[in-house]
Amino acid sequence: MLPGMEKRADALQRLRKAHEEAVLAVLRSEGPMSRTELIKRTGLSRTTLFAIISELMERGAVIESGAEGDGRPRGPGRPAAQVSLNPGAGLLIGVDLGRRRIRVAIANVAQQVIATAVDDSPPDADESEQADLAVALVHKICEDRGIGLGALEAVGIGLVGVMDAPDRRWRAAERLEAAFGTRVEADNNARLAALAEQTWGAARSAEDVVYVRWSVGVGGGFISGGRLLRGAHGAAGELGHVSVDPAGPRCHCGGRGCLEQGIGVPALLEAIASRGVRLTGTDDLLEAAQARTSAVTTVVVKAARTLGRVLAGTVAQLDPQRVVVGGDLALLGGLVLDPIRSALSELALPGTRRTPDVVPADLGPAASAMGAIALMLKEQDPLPPGPNPTNL
Amino acid sequence: MLPGMEKRADALQRLRKAHEEAVLAVLRSEGPMSRTELIKRTGLSRTTLFAIISELMERGAVIESGAEGDGRPRGPGRPAAQVSLNPGAGLLIGVDLGRRRIRVAIANVAQQVIATAVDDSPPDADESEQADLAVALVHKICEDRGIGLGALEAVGIGLVGVMDAPDRRWRAAERLEAAFGTRVEADNNARLAALAEQTWGAARSAEDVVYVRWSVGVGGGFISGGRLLRGAHGAAGELGHVSVDPAGPRCHCGGRGCLEQGIGVPALLEAIASRGVRLTGTDDLLEAAQARTSAVTTVVVKAARTLGRVLAGTVAQLDPQRVVVGGDLALLGGLVLDPIRSALSELALPGTRRTPDVVPADLGPAASAMGAIALMLKEQDPLPPGPNPTNL
Repeated sequence: MLPGMEKRADALQRLRKAHEEAVLAVLRSEGPMSRTELIKRTGLSRTTLFAIISELMERGAVIESGAEGDGRPRGPGRPAAQVSLNPGAGLLIGVDLGRRRIRVAIANVAQQVIATAVDDSPPDADESEQADLAVALVHKICEDRGIGLGALEAVGIGLVGVMDAPDRRWRAAERLEAAFGTRVEADNNARLAALAEQTWGAARSAEDVVYVRWSVGVGGGFISGGRLLRGAHGAAGELGHVSVDPAGPRCHCGGRGCLEQGIGVPALLEAIASRGVRLTGTDDLLEAAQARTSAVTTVVVKAARTLGRVLAGTVAQLDPQRVVVGGDLALLGGLVLDPIRSALSELALPGTRRTPDVVPADLGPAASAMGAIALMLKEQDPLPPGPNPTNL
Repeated sequence: MLPGMEKRADALQRLRKAHEEAVLAVLRSEGPMSRTELIKRTGLSRTTLFAIISELMERGAVIESGAEGDGRPRGPGRPAAQVSLNPGAGLLIGVDLGRRRIRVAIANVAQQVIATAVDDSPPDADESEQADLAVALVHKICEDRGIGLGALEAVGIGLVGVMDAPDRRWRAAERLEAAFGTRVEADNNARLAALAEQTWGAARSAEDVVYVRWSVGVGGGFISGGRLLRGAHGAAGELGHVSVDPAGPRCHCGGRGCLEQGIGVPALLEAIASRGVRLTGTDDLLEAAQARTSAVTTVVVKAARTLGRVLAGTVAQLDPQRVVVGGDLALLGGLVLDPIRSALSELALPGTRRTPDVVPADLGPAASAMGAIALMLKEQDPLPPGPNPTNL
């Protein structure tokens, strides 16, 4: 078979999608207009345009008003029906089922985040319980803010996840689908944070981005040519499981000496304790580092250098224009960013003029919930349907 | 500005491109047909389709035959003009300006490679001289095979290149543009080999591929979601400049302890020499390794393990379904592939079921020249116009 042949179905599929997008884009930027005007603006045939409008109306994405919509008979001099985006449509909910907290964000049809909320997650809650808590949180925030869910279009879920999560995604998705009766999509929450930073935050307008999230775990997400990389099993971005010491201790992922084992908050607390300073958690660690407790800064800087070395490899391979550092540790600013910058300028093809910016993330802890919304806004290839025999 | 707004120009741009592609795809897979049939098959309006056909005819991509094309007056009962792909159009030339050799590949409109040729490159030749040699080689092969260049559509160039190459690309491109009077595109030749393997070779039908080329230098190319990753400066894929020893010797890229310094053929020859076996070059090395000379296999296997460790990081981050190993060393088969497989199964998220295949490249040394053709066939975002302040 010639390479060109198998592309036909794809090309027609893309064409249909492009038609829809063009119609929506014109309506979004130029406001309501008649079908005749839409034909002119998009170059589509009458038949094609009418079919697309019918489908968009069926899905509730557009509405019509005016002559043809008011029930009166059509006659000469009657204005043509105006097609417009459905102002009551397109409500999107993003849910982040984090290790310790559940976060929710809600966006309107204009892709603006209109509300966010957070709740603690019991440490032993599984995804179904977390999903139930998220549903309750959504209902509470909607009640508080007077937001109706009649126009809800889709729900995105961010899940913590490195491995062995084939069922987890579907457990959470099922609960939310049952609760809201809409399309639900799920993805790894570090990758979603990357998408959010590129949509609204520190990587806005950047087409090639390496995002790392450094907290209890270490995760990441890569954007290349404007697209979030998914990988063959929807698992691209796992910066935390790059091995920095192939002879090191076994990691829960099955590997050895993974970056996350070396620099995740638990490892930092342990290294600091071995220097005689007992800290009880992330907030404690951040406070001690900000107060420049020397045992703490020493450990943190060393860890940032390790992260920088791994990122230097990522940068050499992916050639981003920007590296965004998120997660709790990014709150330490220069203390962690400078060692990363040094590592990049020493090791990531320093002979070229392409060392990327290293910047802290902008969006704070709601990034993943926002990213779950961005996931539904972006043109991403959907994850394969049905349970996926891999981690998230 | 709402995120949706700026997308309109993009959406309409994509729409135009999708229209063209759909028309070409239908003609490619179903053969000549009338404009009326094309309207039916594509869902485009009469006006839009006629405009697209006019433009495609102007560019020589399609031709028409039959009633409207034969100069006779149109009348009832006359068959409609048939639009078809121009069989004389779409000749594409790929040129690989390698370290030691210049290779040329020529493909026809059906995207089939119809001829390849190779010539030695003097070791001191610069890109302009190499380009001149390539032009002579193209003319020779065309004469030998009776290929006319009247229908030449574009020329792609693959260049060796890690760094400081802002002008090199343009020197070579200028020569070829002047010689052939067509569009010329250039890219790194390891990345082009990745594209060729995905178009015709070992990664055919794979959407997520990590390709590494292991020879004198070490290069690579990544395909994610079916797209070749370019990076912010057109420089993604530089596997050879991942630092494996941040305290190691300075590399020509400015970094330290780069993979290429440790496992490129010169490093292998040196390590083998220190074990008392003197070899003079790549062929010699391959022969000794195939004869299982123990000093040689020891060094090669250790190098393959190092490569495997770097690839484990790449695989953890990019989640490919397939790793393709090309270049001279790939000719050693299991001797180099097995240590890579081991490293991946030990270090690249072994707890998941997503360890990729590791396979040798299929296309041999013409891969980069073929990739220069694939570059022009694929829908890739073009590199930014004008001299590019970075390496290739």
